[in-house]
Amino acid sequence: MELLDKLNWRYAAKAMNGKKVSEEKMDAIIEAISLAPTSSGLQPFEVIVVTNQAIKDQIRPVAWGQSVVSDCSHLLVFAAWDTYTEDRINKMFDLTNEIRGFKNEGWEDYRKMLLGSYPQRDAETNFNHAAKQAYIAFGMAIVAAAFEGVDTTPMEGFDPEAVDKILNLKEKGLRSCILLPIGYRDQDNDWLVNLKKVRKSKSDLITVID
Amino acid sequence: MELLDKLNWRYAAKAMNGKKVSEEKMDAIIEAISLAPTSSGLQPFEVIVVTNQAIKDQIRPVAWGQSVVSDCSHLLVFAAWDTYTEDRINKMFDLTNEIRGFKNEGWEDYRKMLLGSYPQRDAETNFNHAAKQAYIAFGMAIVAAAFEGVDTTPMEGFDPEAVDKILNLKEKGLRSCILLPIGYRDQDNDWLVNLKKVRKSKSDLITVID
Repeated sequence: MELLDKLNWRYAAKAMNGKKVSEEKMDAIIEAISLAPTSSGLQPFEVIVVTNQAIKDQIRPVAWGQSVVSDCSHLLVFAAWDTYTEDRINKMFDLTNEIRGFKNEGWEDYRKMLLGSYPQRDAETNFNHAAKQAYIAFGMAIVAAAFEGVDTTPMEGFDPEAVDKILNLKEKGLRSCILLPIGYRDQDNDWLVNLKKVRKSKSDLITVID
Repeated sequence: MELLDKLNWRYAAKAMNGKKVSEEKMDAIIEAISLAPTSSGLQPFEVIVVTNQAIKDQIRPVAWGQSVVSDCSHLLVFAAWDTYTEDRINKMFDLTNEIRGFKNEGWEDYRKMLLGSYPQRDAETNFNHAAKQAYIAFGMAIVAAAFEGVDTTPMEGFDPEAVDKILNLKEKGLRSCILLPIGYRDQDNDWLVNLKKVRKSKSDLITVID
């Protein structure tokens, strides 16, 4: 099965060669992110796409000095909403009504329920919930990239507050939660590329109740 | 592009017709879950695959009564580790050494670093971190299912503690974090199937820094 072949080809590139990923392939990856399902359809995150070399080089030291941060083609910074606000919730519900061309009572009741619970929760709980939605899109971006024959490096090893500062995310009500350098593997300089993929056994991963 | 066509075909099915998904297709979806990248490769979650009708029917009322829980073919319950323990961390590092056939000093130093930090953190922080890894796999499962022409319903609307109790997850050191009913849409009885997909504009989702 073609998709699984590509997922087996995929690995967390530890060295990239600086080659540019085409706009067409990047558009496909971004489209997959956009199409990711999110809780209540809120899409509570944004993605900062950094191609500017100076900014990549500035982020690298606050990402454990990992070379792929500067040697990637596009550095994707997934940044989740720092909390849920009435405005943010209303904006997505209004957009839904606008796109679908009608108002629905059940949908409006659901809006009220969210407005009556999410904004009242503490910001950390809301950020964590929003970040999880970003992780769904993150997973889909990785698959889309692999499907395009493009490498990625899923990366939690960085200082989120430092990245937020570099990208002025706080002012936008965002907090970085995960990075995805996108580019092409540097086969000759990557210690990981030829090592066997490690996964726990299916019996440790899956329990069937039939 | 074929993958994007399938992601556009995908939606959160609100009614399923009870038709069984073949073992072959389920294997592909589970393989995608297994191949998902996770932080430090720990794969800190398990997936309970429920096909037993009585158990599905028992879960439905604690999942807002959503019909897809009982009308799906396979109900996937993503359950994350309730915390990181020394045993759990060592098991994955040992497995890595076993599969790759050698010990590496850098890798062993990294093991020590995790052992010196993760088990000491509070369980809630660890569970949240582990759950995020499950969400990556969750996103990949949704893509793999769509690629196979199989419907899914991403579902956070359920009572995790009640599901944990039904599946005895606490005893296994697991906590359910997200559900994925898998099956086939019931086109005639699904209010959502013909509604337009709603996504915020690319300019609201993406910021390019070039």
